[in-house]
Formats: sequence, structure tokens, C-alpha cells
Amino acid sequence: MIQELLSKDGTSQLILSKIAELEGASIAELAKTISEGKTVIPYNSTRRLSKPCGIGEGLRTKINANIGTSSDEPDFTKEIAKLDVAIEYGADAVMDLSTGPNIKKIREELLARCRVPFGTVPIYEACAETFKRGRSVTEMEEDLILDVIEAQASEGVDFFTIHAGVTLKAVEIMQREGRLLDIVSRGGAILARWMLANRKENPLYSRFNEVLDIAKKFNVTISLGDGMRPGSIADATDGAQIQELITLGELVLEARKKDVQVIVEGPGHVPLNEVKLNVQLEKSICHGAPFYVLGPLVTDIAAGYDHISGAIGGAIAAAAGADFLCYLTPSEHLRLPDVNDVKEGVIASRIAAHAGDIAKGIRGAVERDKELSRARRRRDWAKQIKLCIDPKKAKEYRESASPNIKDVCTMCSEYCSIMMNDECFSKKGGKV
Amino acid sequence: MIQELLSKDGTSQLILSKIAELEGASIAELAKTISEGKTVIPYNSTRRLSKPCGIGEGLRTKINANIGTSSDEPDFTKEIAKLDVAIEYGADAVMDLSTGPNIKKIREELLARCRVPFGTVPIYEACAETFKRGRSVTEMEEDLILDVIEAQASEGVDFFTIHAGVTLKAVEIMQREGRLLDIVSRGGAILARWMLANRKENPLYSRFNEVLDIAKKFNVTISLGDGMRPGSIADATDGAQIQELITLGELVLEARKKDVQVIVEGPGHVPLNEVKLNVQLEKSICHGAPFYVLGPLVTDIAAGYDHISGAIGGAIAAAAGADFLCYLTPSEHLRLPDVNDVKEGVIASRIAAHAGDIAKGIRGAVERDKELSRARRRRDWAKQIKLCIDPKKAKEYRESASPNIKDVCTMCSEYCSIMMNDECFSKKGGKV
Repeated sequence: MIQELLSKDGTSQLILSKIAELEGASIAELAKTISEGKTVIPYNSTRRLSKPCGIGEGLRTKINANIGTSSDEPDFTKEIAKLDVAIEYGADAVMDLSTGPNIKKIREELLARCRVPFGTVPIYEACAETFKRGRSVTEMEEDLILDVIEAQASEGVDFFTIHAGVTLKAVEIMQREGRLLDIVSRGGAILARWMLANRKENPLYSRFNEVLDIAKKFNVTISLGDGMRPGSIADATDGAQIQELITLGELVLEARKKDVQVIVEGPGHVPLNEVKLNVQLEKSICHGAPFYVLGPLVTDIAAGYDHISGAIGGAIAAAAGADFLCYLTPSEHLRLPDVNDVKEGVIASRIAAHAGDIAKGIRGAVERDKELSRARRRRDWAKQIKLCIDPKKAKEYRESASPNIKDVCTMCSEYCSIMMNDECFSKKGGKV
Repeated sequence: MIQELLSKDGTSQLILSKIAELEGASIAELAKTISEGKTVIPYNSTRRLSKPCGIGEGLRTKINANIGTSSDEPDFTKEIAKLDVAIEYGADAVMDLSTGPNIKKIREELLARCRVPFGTVPIYEACAETFKRGRSVTEMEEDLILDVIEAQASEGVDFFTIHAGVTLKAVEIMQREGRLLDIVSRGGAILARWMLANRKENPLYSRFNEVLDIAKKFNVTISLGDGMRPGSIADATDGAQIQELITLGELVLEARKKDVQVIVEGPGHVPLNEVKLNVQLEKSICHGAPFYVLGPLVTDIAAGYDHISGAIGGAIAAAAGADFLCYLTPSEHLRLPDVNDVKEGVIASRIAAHAGDIAKGIRGAVERDKELSRARRRRDWAKQIKLCIDPKKAKEYRESASPNIKDVCTMCSEYCSIMMNDECFSKKGGKV
């Protein structure tokens, strides 16, 4: 896939030039980091993707929104609405994590509608199929897992989470060392239960080569899942987590050998002072592969506000070099998100990504802030609002409270510092 | 005041022991950092404060909520409601920034009701009084400023923001170097305009000794305002800001000489990668005085969501050693906050403070996370909700979506990883 992206054929060149333009980068730069495996472009070869994106070194930090049904919330029309709102507010990619009925049907509907890279976790469908056959998780057939992966790849999924690092060894370390919250990844928990019941190695690990062959065939990007990610602050950065990371580093090389694009997933619940360390570890152990983090959440106690906790961790991770942030919504740990939760999650994650991009000096990032601040200096409200992360909300707030002096706001009224500045400083602001 | 706090009389010992108990610290430890000026206890000697707090080294990071009217929003009953909600959701201190009519009356009502340390910015009332006399800001009388400070102190205000660092020199540096958004602090803008029009030094600087005498008389803590704080990412950590910080460092020593408790205010708009640097600079230049930051906001483009942008900066600042976070609300840059904005702001700021406290290893901080995670492992929902930062919202979310299996949630339903863990790991979780 990497070779294909870098080939001189029309489609590849079109994608590369589109992304280079979006990022203000040159095609040569982009081609270099792709060939090094430090950048990926998730793009299934059977899809026509109107909004592809690059994830990796030197590029704007991307964000992902998880959507999808559960058995308790099977209504897939809600998922369509979530997809739309996620993309409207700026999600660069979407993952369908459906585990309710009709997984395949929902995926088809979402895929047809989705303009951005679309990811899944195939082990969920394999598990659902096993349940449908009246069997337990522990009776899931290895071949079924591979069949599901191939079927989903052929339908056009752009990237797969593959929990290949949940090895017997990692689980054993976890059991020996102990954790407050053993395995909080659904995929990880499914696989660990299967492995311990069958006394067999994780099939996604033992048959990783077959997974790669399918990925290669359809140009699917592999996102190596972190099934051992910590689910509480107390469990962060422990032996089991890092054991898995070492395995993922090896699998990164396997994927590259087979010319398959690959990224690595990371935690999870991490204290603020260990976020940077986690990014550095991944970059070092996983050979510079793009890092895709879930939050991280910097506290366990913010259920109802995990989008904020996740934005704190995500911003620090992005600044430290994380390339791809998975959002969290206010409903994390409490219920399946609704449409508004998805919106709140996407916006919080975009703030985090942008703050990280300013810090790491991504091309063009701070320019938008400067432009907005210039408009603020002129008290040009229309322009300020237009440049805000959520112009609708900014406009609604602005219009809900009318000041008597037309171009100030009701916070300060006649005490507006910016208006006072007019009396003694240049109206344009001094710095360009 | 510092000597009084450390004296052996009954009231002082009662306050010290109350705070030591709240923080899980010893009285001796507390007394040591107070005597070094690294901790303050804002507490006007004329007040009976039922919830005093310590701000400084080794203590839990505190948060402040700004409330108060403006000319466009003069209804003070709303401010009473904001005060109540701020304290209900965990504000450790409240500042009344009223600039609307009847400032004195509003302050009296709020003060009588406020159980936590109460702060003001006296220059606002001096300015309002000047306007009332039909004069311009530039005609404000120096003595009036001192009179207002003394009157407010005698009424029981616990801490004052005093913008004494906005010197002619700092303003001159700013004008020479240029800024996108000159002076965004209201107090700073008022003083700069006055200074430039009158070609005179800032009276809060030139007469700082008189301010200290009043503070000493009523045991008011001085919060040295950052009138030169950056109002855009592009202006952060510039010469004017640091020039002011150097002055504030000198004034910290003046205050300590007069036995007046003092803290230092900081920015503002700061890129994520300069937040830690700003904390370190303050601690170094201002002789370890407690640092009180506004956010910081890590981007200029998040109006409508500045509570999130501020929580990102605040968490990083707290982890780096900031002691006191001023909240920001979703309405920042757009309108005077309403009651719900205050609630959202306080909660975001509490998440930031707690994440910082975990990172800097504050006594007892991570214990709450561990307790919640243990409850999560047992799927004990009542306990989880009780330990959440906003139990009401967590409960509301939980109750809005009923799972078929009673102790999971609708996110994962039968795929609940924690339930799956029961089949292969100890139900209690492995780590204590």
C-alpha cells in the first residue's frame, strides 16, 4: 500500500497532492514520511473517499469520533445523525463500533455516507456472529475472525483496530502484577477471555501475517489496538501496557515489511505527568509509527465531563507528538453517546488538537489565532465568530446578550479594555 | 498578617488547624510555608469565614470563580444565584468583578452570603465612582483609589487584585515591541490610559506602601494583578509581560516586609508549550509566592468553549506548580456568564485542578480516583456516581439510558469489558 501511494499513477498522485495542499506541505515531504512509515493515509482501495487525510509527522493532529450502536441502543438512524454531526464539527475520521443487531447493514449505510476515513474493530462483528450462533465468546472460531476481517476489507473499511498485542505474556504480566481495572478494552477483554479459556495465543497475533495479507489486498491501514491500555490512573504505564507496546513495535516492522500502513493505539487513563512519556515511549519503541491515543483521560472522576478530561490529556499528547486523537464524549463511562454528546466530544477534541498543533509549530496553526485576535482588536464580531471553533455557538452566545455600546460585549460593557486601548494605542494592534 | 496567622491566639490556631485538617497536613508544615510566603490564607480580620482555604505549596490547587454585574447586566439577583452555584460545585474562592450600578450594595449582599474567601478589584469601583461624578477615567483621583481600597477592606473583602505592576516602563516596552491585543486586563487598560493621559506613574505602584498599610490593618491578602497579561497566543511571554513580572517580584518582597500576605497573578493566553515556563518564571522571579493563573487559555479560537481551553492550560499550570486557578466560562469573550456558564466553568476548572494535583502528588488526590475505579470494577454505580466530580450530571446520564443487564451501561451492553473480566480475573481487581 505504501508503494502504491507513492507510485506515479493518477489516483495516488491525486490523493497525495490533495493532502499536501490541505497541509501546506510539499508532495516530496509527504512522500518521504510515508515511505518512512511516519505518516499514513487511510484509504481503502475500493472506496472513493472525498475527504481523505494524512496522519503523522509534521501534519495537523487529526481527530476521530467513535459512533455505533449497542444492544441497548440499536436504532441506527441515530448513528447516521451522529456521523453527520461528527463530520460537520470537524472529525477527520470516524469509527463504527457497533455491537447491536445488524452490524453489517449499519456499516454499509454509514460507509456509503461517510466522506472521511472509516474505521472498525472487526473482532466485535466476529463476536456478535459467534453469539448469533448460540455460542460463547470462548467458542469463537479463529477462521471466523479472519473471514470477518476480509469481508469488512472488501466492503471498503479504511482502517481496522487489530488487538494483536494482547499476548499470553502480556496478560500473564498483568495478572501477576495486578491492576485496579484489569482489561478495559472490549477487544482486549474478548481476546483475553478466549485465550485463557482455550489456553491458546491470541489469533490476531499468531495469524497476524494473514491479517496483513488482507490489509495489503484492499489497502486497509492497520491500527494496532491497545487491548492492555490502563482503565484507571493507578494502572497507567505498567508492565502489561508496556509489554504490549513492545509487541506492537515488532508488529509495526512486520506490517512495513509487507508494505501495509500501520499506526499504534495508546491509552487511556494516564496521569498528566506521564502523558508525554507515553508518547515518547511509543515513538521510540514503535519505530516512529503514528500514535493514536484515546484521550488520554487525566483523571478517573470526571464521568459526565470526560470530553474535558480527555481534551487535557489529548492536548498534551498532541503537543508531545501524538498524531491522532480519539475523542471522548460527556457520556463516556455512563451510556452510549447521543448526538449532542458526539458534538461536544468532537469540539473538545478539536480544541485539544489545535492547542497541540500551536505548541508543536504545525504550519498554519497559530495563523488562525492571530487572525481571530486581529479581528478581536478591531471588535469585528462577524469575523471573530466566523473564525471560532464553533461559530454557531459563538453567534448564539453573542446574540443572547445585546450590549448598549454596539461593538463591545456584556461582560465589560463600557469597561471594555479593547475599546479603552483605542484611546491610547494604535487601533490596529502593534504586531503583525 | 502573616505573624498574626502564626501567633498562638485562639482564632489563628483554629484557622490553621482547620486548614491543616482539610489538607491532611500538619500545622507545623503549614506554618512553615506561610512564614516563607509560599502559602497564604486569605481571611479579612473583620470576617467570620466558614470555609477558609490555604493557597500555596503542597496544598490542593484551589479555584476561583469570577462573578459580578456589568452595566448591560445589572440584575444582582443573578449574581446571588451565581455565587450559590459556584460554591455548590466547588469554587474555593469567589471574586466580585461588578462594574454595573450599585457596586457597594451588591458587594455587601454577596459578602454576607459568601462562605469562601471573597475578592475584588477595587480599581473598578474607583472608576465607577469617577464616572458617577461625570468625569473620565483619566480624571480619576489617586486618593479616591486609596479610599475605595480602604472602604472595601473595612467591609471584609479577603483579597484584592492590585495592578501595581502596570508601570510606565512596562507600557513603554509594550508600545515599542507591539502586540496584537495591547492590554486586555480591564484594570490594566484603565491604569494605562490614566498614566499616559496624565504622564504619571501608576498610583497603585507609586503608593503601594499605602495599599500595604490598609491590607495590613484588615488582614487583606494582596493579589498582584497582571495588567500586562497577553490577550492572544501571539503576545504570550513577551517583554512587557515579563517586565511586569519583575516588578511584581519586587512588590512581593515589599509586602512581606510589611507582613502582608501576597500572591501573584499570571496569564492569560499562552501556548501550551509555554505554560510550564510561565509557572517556573513566576516562582523564580517572585520568590516562591503562590501563583494565580487565569486559565491559561491555550488557543484564541475557542470562544464558546473557553472553559475547556482554560482547563487544558490550567491543568498543565497546576501540574507545574500553579497554586490557584481562575476559571473561565463558556461565555468568555462573548457575554457576561449566566448561572449555567458559571457551573460549567467551575467544573472544568475543578477537573484541571484535580488533574494537576494527581500529577504533582498532592496528598489524597489520586485516592479518590482509586476509590472510584474500585467501585467501577465492582460495577457499584451508586458509589461511582457519588465519587464523580458532578454526581448530579453523572446520575442524570446514567438514568437516561437503562441497560437490559442491570449493572453494565448502554455503551457496551453485553460487551462490557469489566463484566467479561469477571470470567477470568479476580472480581475485586488485583491492585490495592
